[in-house]
Amino acid sequence: MIRGIYIGRFQPPHLGHVYAITKVLDEVNELIIGVGSAQISHTLDNPFTAGERLLMLRLALMEYNIDLCKVYIVPIPDIGMNYVWVKYVSMLVPPFHIAYSNNPLVLRLFKEAGYLVKRIPMYDRSKYSGKLIRKLMLTGGPWEKLVPKSVASFIKEIGGVERLREISGSDEVI
Amino acid sequence: MIRGIYIGRFQPPHLGHVYAITKVLDEVNELIIGVGSAQISHTLDNPFTAGERLLMLRLALMEYNIDLCKVYIVPIPDIGMNYVWVKYVSMLVPPFHIAYSNNPLVLRLFKEAGYLVKRIPMYDRSKYSGKLIRKLMLTGGPWEKLVPKSVASFIKEIGGVERLREISGSDEVI
Amino acid sequence: MIRGIYIGRFQPPHLGHVYAITKVLDEVNELIIGVGSAQISHTLDNPFTAGERLLMLRLALMEYNIDLCKVYIVPIPDIGMNYVWVKYVSMLVPPFHIAYSNNPLVLRLFKEAGYLVKRIPMYDRSKYSGKLIRKLMLTGGPWEKLVPKSVASFIKEIGGVERLREISGSDEVI
Amino acid sequence: MIRGIYIGRFQPPHLGHVYAITKVLDEVNELIIGVGSAQISHTLDNPFTAGERLLMLRLALMEYNIDLCKVYIVPIPDIGMNYVWVKYVSMLVPPFHIAYSNNPLVLRLFKEAGYLVKRIPMYDRSKYSGKLIRKLMLTGGPWEKLVPKSVASFIKEIGGVERLREISGSDEVI
Amino acid sequence: MIRGIYIGRFQPPHLGHVYAITKVLDEVNELIIGVGSAQISHTLDNPFTAGERLLMLRLALMEYNIDLCKVYIVPIPDIGMNYVWVKYVSMLVPPFHIAYSNNPLVLRLFKEAGYLVKRIPMYDRSKYSGKLIRKLMLTGGPWEKLVPKSVASFIKEIGGVERLREISGSDEVI
Amino acid sequence: MIRGIYIGRFQPPHLGHVYAITKVLDEVNELIIGVGSAQISHTLDNPFTAGERLLMLRLALMEYNIDLCKVYIVPIPDIGMNYVWVKYVSMLVPPFHIAYSNNPLVLRLFKEAGYLVKRIPMYDRSKYSGKLIRKLMLTGGPWEKLVPKSVASFIKEIGGVERLREISGSDEVI
Repeated sequence: MIRGIYIGRFQPPHLGHVYAITKVLDEVNELIIGVGSAQISHTLDNPFTAGERLLMLRLALMEYNIDLCKVYIVPIPDIGMNYVWVKYVSMLVPPFHIAYSNNPLVLRLFKEAGYLVKRIPMYDRSKYSGKLIRKLMLTGGPWEKLVPKSVASFIKEIGGVERLREISGSDEVI
Repeated sequence: MIRGIYIGRFQPPHLGHVYAITKVLDEVNELIIGVGSAQISHTLDNPFTAGERLLMLRLALMEYNIDLCKVYIVPIPDIGMNYVWVKYVSMLVPPFHIAYSNNPLVLRLFKEAGYLVKRIPMYDRSKYSGKLIRKLMLTGGPWEKLVPKSVASFIKEIGGVERLREISGSDEVI
Repeated sequence: MIRGIYIGRFQPPHLGHVYAITKVLDEVNELIIGVGSAQISHTLDNPFTAGERLLMLRLALMEYNIDLCKVYIVPIPDIGMNYVWVKYVSMLVPPFHIAYSNNPLVLRLFKEAGYLVKRIPMYDRSKYSGKLIRKLMLTGGPWEKLVPKSVASFIKEIGGVERLREISGSDEVI
Repeated sequence: MIRGIYIGRFQPPHLGHVYAITKVLDEVNELIIGVGSAQISHTLDNPFTAGERLLMLRLALMEYNIDLCKVYIVPIPDIGMNYVWVKYVSMLVPPFHIAYSNNPLVLRLFKEAGYLVKRIPMYDRSKYSGKLIRKLMLTGGPWEKLVPKSVASFIKEIGGVERLREISGSDEVI
Repeated sequence: MIRGIYIGRFQPPHLGHVYAITKVLDEVNELIIGVGSAQISHTLDNPFTAGERLLMLRLALMEYNIDLCKVYIVPIPDIGMNYVWVKYVSMLVPPFHIAYSNNPLVLRLFKEAGYLVKRIPMYDRSKYSGKLIRKLMLTGGPWEKLVPKSVASFIKEIGGVERLREISGSDEVI
Repeated sequence: MIRGIYIGRFQPPHLGHVYAITKVLDEVNELIIGVGSAQISHTLDNPFTAGERLLMLRLALMEYNIDLCKVYIVPIPDIGMNYVWVKYVSMLVPPFHIAYSNNPLVLRLFKEAGYLVKRIPMYDRSKYSGKLIRKLMLTGGPWEKLVPKSVASFIKEIGGVERLREISGSDEVI
C-alpha cells in the first residue's frame, strides 16, 4: 500500500489541482491532501479559511467522482521552522511514502527528510493558478471556469469575491 | 443539510466512539470529527500522534461500514485560550450547526458561542473509555476487545503498547 | 510623580482588592492594575475573561469613588518565561517605580529587575480571597458580600455562577 | 448603554486620533481604544511600546478634556489568525456594540463577526497620519504640531526621535 | 568521528552530571550537552536560567579538567510537541550519532527517530540528584558537597539559595 | 573579568566574522557568540540551521587557533518583541558587560537596556558579507575564499550550495 502526500494552500482549489490529484491517484493507493498555512485567511493571497478550503476540496473531489475513501484532507498550520516542518507535518497526517510538489523548498525539505519526492503533473499552469484566479476575482474577470462548478457555487454562497474585494480596500470593479 | 461536530482526543478510538458516531450520524447529514490536542503525543494520557489517530478513526469507520463521504476527520491543535477556542475550531473545519460532547467545558464553550449543543449518546462508559484502555495496555490487561479489530491491529503494528510502557518508565508488565 | 504597579488575576475583583488599591493609592500618584493570565478564562481557577475582569475592576473603582484618572487597568497575557516577565510587563504598561505584590515569585522577579517592591496591605485575607469566593459560588454559599455590589450585579448579569458550575461538571448545588 | 471600540496602532497618537475619538464619543457612552500590535516596538513603523502608547493616549485625552471615565485603553497583541482575531479582541476588552475603523480588513472582520461597523470620522487624513509623522521625525521635519502638546513633550522626554533615527541606521538629518 | 548528545535540565549541574559526562567522553569524540527547558527559571524545580546553567556547566568542566574543545553546551527551549522534539533538537545542535539519557521518554523519542540510544552511567543516583540538591537548599541542608566547588561558589555569588527560598514563599529555614 | 556578546546570523560564518571575533577577544576575557534567528533555515537569506552554524563557528575558531575556553557559542531563537529581546538574550547566555554589533537596532536595544555597546571592527565589509557569499553560491561565483577553509569544506560536505540553489527554484548556474 503506497500513500502519497500533496500539500498546497488551495486558495481556492481549482481545476489544475483536480487534474493533479487525479494523476497522483493513478500512482498511489491513498493520497493525503495537506491544506497549508491553515491558520491564515482574509488576506489577498489567502482569502479562505482552512475549513472553507477543506469543504471546497471535498466538493471538488465529489464533483469529479474521486473516491473519498482514498483521500485524507488535513489542515496544516504553519510552524515557522523549515528544518522541522516535514516532521511536524508527519505528526499531523498518517504515514506516507511519496511527497508530491512543484515547490522547490517543499521538494528539498521532503528529500532531506529521506522521503521519495515527485513533481506534480500540472495542467496548463499559466491558466490554472490560484494567483491568477484571485486576481480575476478582484478585477471582475472570468474566474468561474477555472474552478470546479461546486467550488464556484460555494464561493458565491459565502460571498468570497466580496470578501476579497473588501479586504483589498475596494468593492469597486477596477 | 445539517452538519455536526464531535471533538475528542481518541487516545485511542474505541467502540464507545464508534457507537457515538453511529448514533450522531442518525441525526445529522455530515459529521466533523475533531481530533483534539493534536500536537500532543508520547505521553501516558496521549500516546498516539494526531496522524495515527486520524488513521485509526478511518480504519474504525471503514470496519463498521460508516460512509466516509459523510465524515470529516480533522486534527485540532490546542490554542490555550478557552474563550477563543470555538472560533479557532470553526476556522479549521467546515461550517457546522450542532456540537456534540459530554465534556462540560466543551458544551459550555459551544453554547456561549451560540451553537446548539447536544450530549453524546455513550455506550457503557465505564467500560469503553480511553483512560481504562490505556491502563489495560500498561498493565497487560485485555484492551483489544474494547477497540475495533482494525484499530487493535494497527496499534500492534506500530508497537503502540511498547511505546506506552517505555514512556511510563517500565517495559515490564506490572 | 510616582507610579506603582499591582498585578493580580482578579478572579473576580473583591473587597480585599479594593482595600489594597485604596491603600496603595495613598502612596503613589498613579497605579497600574495589571490583570494577569489575561488569555485564560472558563476554568475553575480563572472563570472570567480579561475583558470581564477589566469591566468589573472599573465598576469596583467607580463604586468606591476611586479616581479613574489615577489608575491604568491593563490585561497581561502570560509569557511563560519568568526571567523575562518583568520586562514583558513593562513593555505593556507605562513606566513605573514601585511594584506591589504579596506573591513571593512576583516580588522576587521585580526585585531582581531592579524595582522597589512593597508588600500589599491586605484586609482579612482569609475571608477576601478569590479562591474562597469561587468555592462559595460553586457550592451555593454567600459570595456576594465579599465583592463590590456592582461586581456582584455584573456577575449575575452574565451568568457567571452558572458558568463556573457548568465548567465544574455540575450545575447542582452540592 | 452603547459601547464602541476603535483599534489603531497609535504610532504615535496624533490630532487626527483625538478628533476621531471626540467624534465617536458623541455617538457612544463608552469607547474602548485598542492599541494594536502591542508586542511590537523599536521598528520604523512601530517605534513606541504599547506602554508608551497607552501613556501618550492618556495624555492626549487629558489635554483635550476627554472624560477618562468613558474610555478604556487596552493593549492588543497580534494573534496572527485573522478569522479568530475579533473573538480574541473581545476576550481582552469589555463587551461592545459598534466597531469603528477605516481599515478595510478590520471592518470586514468585525462585520463577519456580526458587529455593527462604522467608518471613523477623520480630520484631514493626508496631514494627520502616523506614517507622515514618523517620516517627519526621521527627516527633521515639523512633526510636533501634528500631535497633542503633551504627546510631543513625552516623545522628547524619552528621546523618541533619536530612537527612530538610530533604528533607521542614521542619526543624521537627511 | 562520533558525536554524542546528553540532554538534562542541570538545575543545578552536580557531581553526578560530571561523572556521567566524563564516562560518556570515553565513548565519543565530542559531546553535545543540551540544557533543556531553557526558557524556564525561577521555579522550585527550575531555579536557574539557561545562561546560569551554561556558565555552571562550563565551570564544572573546567574544574574537572574536561577538554572544552570536545564539548558543545547548548540551551534547548521546550517545544511542546514530543513527536517533533528530536528533530527540533537536531536543528539547534551539530549532527550527532548517539543519544545518552536515562529518561524513558527521551530514550524512546531518540530511538523512534532512528538514533542509537544508550543509558547514561550514573554515580550514586540517590545522592547526586537535582531534586535532592534543591530540597537541601530549601531546608538548609548540606548541598554544597554534591556539586563542583566552582558551581557552589557561583550559586552563592548570585544568591541562588535565597532565590529558591524566596520563590518558595519563605526565606526561613524550615 | 569582562565578558562581551556578539550576535549575528552567521549565514555562513566568514573571514570578516573571524577578524571581528579576534579583535573583540583582545578587549574582553570571554566572548559570547549568539547565533541569531536560530529557528530559521532553508531560506535564501538563512540557508543553514543553527546547529550547522554552531559547528561552522567552532571549525572557524579552531582553524584560526582561537581559544575555545574563552568563547561561548549559543543559538538565539527569535522572540518577536524588540523591547524584550535583550532580556530574553540574557536569559539564554551567561552574564555579560559589553555588547558588540554594527546593527543599529541591536546597538539601540542593548543601549536602552543599560549595556555598554561598541561597534564591531569589520574587515573589508563590502567583500566579507554573508549576503555577497550567498549570492556567489547561487550564481556559481568564487565564495570559498571568503570563508575559513574548514567552513568551505563543511558546506561542501553537506551540499550547502545545492541546498541554496534548490531552494531558489533553480539548480542551474544563472
